[in-house]
Amino acid sequence: MDRETCLSFDRQDPLASLREEFTLPEGVIYLDGNSLGALPKQTMPRLNEVIAREWGGGLIRSWNTAHWMEAPARVGDKIARLIGAKAGEVIVADSTSVNLFKLLAGALRVQPGRHFILTETSNFPTDVYIAQGLVDLLGGNHVVRAVERAQIEPSLDGSVAVLMLTHVDYATGEIHDMQRITAAAQKVGALMLWDLSHSAGAMPVDLNAAGVELAVGCGYKYLNGGPGAPAYLFVAKGLQDAMQSPLSGWMGHVAPFAFEPEYRPAPGISRLLAGSPPILSMLALEVAIDLWLRVDQQESRRKSMALGDLFIQQVDETCRDLGIEVVGPREAAQRGSQVSLRHKEGYRVMRALIDRGIIGDFRTPDLMRFGFAPLYTRYVDVFDAVHGLHEVLTSRAWDRPEYKTRLAVT
Amino acid sequence: MDRETCLSFDRQDPLASLREEFTLPEGVIYLDGNSLGALPKQTMPRLNEVIAREWGGGLIRSWNTAHWMEAPARVGDKIARLIGAKAGEVIVADSTSVNLFKLLAGALRVQPGRHFILTETSNFPTDVYIAQGLVDLLGGNHVVRAVERAQIEPSLDGSVAVLMLTHVDYATGEIHDMQRITAAAQKVGALMLWDLSHSAGAMPVDLNAAGVELAVGCGYKYLNGGPGAPAYLFVAKGLQDAMQSPLSGWMGHVAPFAFEPEYRPAPGISRLLAGSPPILSMLALEVAIDLWLRVDQQESRRKSMALGDLFIQQVDETCRDLGIEVVGPREAAQRGSQVSLRHKEGYRVMRALIDRGIIGDFRTPDLMRFGFAPLYTRYVDVFDAVHGLHEVLTSRAWDRPEYKTRLAVT
Repeated sequence: MDRETCLSFDRQDPLASLREEFTLPEGVIYLDGNSLGALPKQTMPRLNEVIAREWGGGLIRSWNTAHWMEAPARVGDKIARLIGAKAGEVIVADSTSVNLFKLLAGALRVQPGRHFILTETSNFPTDVYIAQGLVDLLGGNHVVRAVERAQIEPSLDGSVAVLMLTHVDYATGEIHDMQRITAAAQKVGALMLWDLSHSAGAMPVDLNAAGVELAVGCGYKYLNGGPGAPAYLFVAKGLQDAMQSPLSGWMGHVAPFAFEPEYRPAPGISRLLAGSPPILSMLALEVAIDLWLRVDQQESRRKSMALGDLFIQQVDETCRDLGIEVVGPREAAQRGSQVSLRHKEGYRVMRALIDRGIIGDFRTPDLMRFGFAPLYTRYVDVFDAVHGLHEVLTSRAWDRPEYKTRLAVT
Repeated sequence: MDRETCLSFDRQDPLASLREEFTLPEGVIYLDGNSLGALPKQTMPRLNEVIAREWGGGLIRSWNTAHWMEAPARVGDKIARLIGAKAGEVIVADSTSVNLFKLLAGALRVQPGRHFILTETSNFPTDVYIAQGLVDLLGGNHVVRAVERAQIEPSLDGSVAVLMLTHVDYATGEIHDMQRITAAAQKVGALMLWDLSHSAGAMPVDLNAAGVELAVGCGYKYLNGGPGAPAYLFVAKGLQDAMQSPLSGWMGHVAPFAFEPEYRPAPGISRLLAGSPPILSMLALEVAIDLWLRVDQQESRRKSMALGDLFIQQVDETCRDLGIEVVGPREAAQRGSQVSLRHKEGYRVMRALIDRGIIGDFRTPDLMRFGFAPLYTRYVDVFDAVHGLHEVLTSRAWDRPEYKTRLAVT
């Protein structure tokens, strides 16, 4: 494998033209779209329109005339098409953490007598924190039980209210078998809740096909919605009318402008809205989702797998004896759109890479994480990134005192 | 009082030049800045910079280099200066509803044995809904008790965990005496929680001087942060370490990037952060707050009172026999920066006004609400608005069939 071959892959890539839809800085190889997706070119003109014409010109009228009021459901319906859900099953609202809280609280209520929120020890920590916070607030018999991956299915029994898992592991990229695990949970009467933050946009997801009841996900990673973009939540149609949001704000009321003294939940998914949504951030997300709706997800998955395979193959070939270990699945079918490498000085190596314009991120204690956003990552980027890694390792460019200091965000 | 006199008031207005800081559409008299504040001229260039340079160019690095990570605390510290709080007592996060949930849940925990969340029947409904949702979730002995305004202080006793009130009534504009009521609540050991959504930016607020423990407020009304701008919350220094957030997301963890298995709250106000913040919406809010920090709030309060007085005086003078009743305090000192008028066809009258470019809003069942944003509302706007109202009423321009249909947002 040489650089010329990678360039020829790029020339043959059916998704190659999508890179033109993004603004990417010169001299940067961006392999952190799994943490903050790149900027779509249409975001700026659309946001200018939202700010100048809708906010500045339309003012309060734009809640009606620019259809801001429907934005959470409208953008939700668009995301539904990316994750195998029906219209009316997804809304955009709040953050992933807050949405998780709503769904877990709602799930516990419809599962009386079941005490466990089951999850895995390697789940994304904030998901576990939110479950802990809820259980602690309730102060009753509920318990968050985190088990090793291999123990998830054996731990399922009639005491489990909800099984909460992240579909693609944030650290290793390993994919859970959504269909099998969902079926196993349902067999014992547990509700299944998937966090899709590291999967939507990285691979096709089909919630309806797997019979999933609950899901959340974030808008700012592969979906390219912008920093801290609002998150989404999914509740299967059949469960919606039983779901009660603990965050019963006016946007989830059946008639927000009736100003009734008592909360009455809206029918359907809208009952899981709480307060007024951040319109600028939400409409930036919509631009990115509109772009995603033009993408053949089977095609983007094929490319994503090929990029990951190329990365691993190049690392094996060039960095074998340089203290690097590939973490997580080598088999593309078991991997999301990211690969992690272990190195005892991983933090400093990543800092040195970033200073050379090769941007991944670091996850404690020793993982360097590289994401392959199939809409804008090229084969030659992967080749050049591994070449840069090889150079940093052989030159010990990471061994500079300033790289010992940890930045706020790693 | 004639139009020329109003124009002369505008010429003498020490705040007149601030209107130049806003983009306002031609042919519109905007009296709904209490619902969605107007667009500051600096918002667009700043958002363009955030989108192009920070997101597009800096990508993930901007969490460090553009200081996104500190934005909730930084913008919070700026808001603190507007509401009489200290640095480190305010953060920007989530929506007002979600923040209220956090503070109420935290308040109930530090008040064991006290069963009531006391509020008033005319409080903004979403505040009451959130309290109802929390109490319902807890499923214990807690009760939301809503009483008439005159019964608030007589209802305070050792069974009240927290007294939750909106400082300025959304419908009538009536101001609560923050100092007296806070003292009365504290005398019986209740915590005091103020919703400042209709006061911050409409009048000076001094939380520390009144000894307030808890407050929330929204960013999109008088503060001009943009549609659905993130909200803020305040916890007095002395109470912060006892406050436990039920929404224990990673942004409130003492070390978000340590990815520890157990939640450990950050010291201070940051523990009340939950998920990743919507950066575009938050930095739009910061532009507006920076503008507010240039304003002498005593001066803006003086103007706001004068505008309200002028409005009432003009209504008295011209609309007296046209089915109009002034609702709420006639005395400026008891009123926020808004005046409501009752008319049996209030909804349709407001629609007709809006069609003429005179924009207020409607609150069920029969209130037309007019807000006076002192940074950009002119005396002549108030004069012209009442003139327009007089014309709509005398011509019965409101009596058109299409005005019978209610829009989604009224």
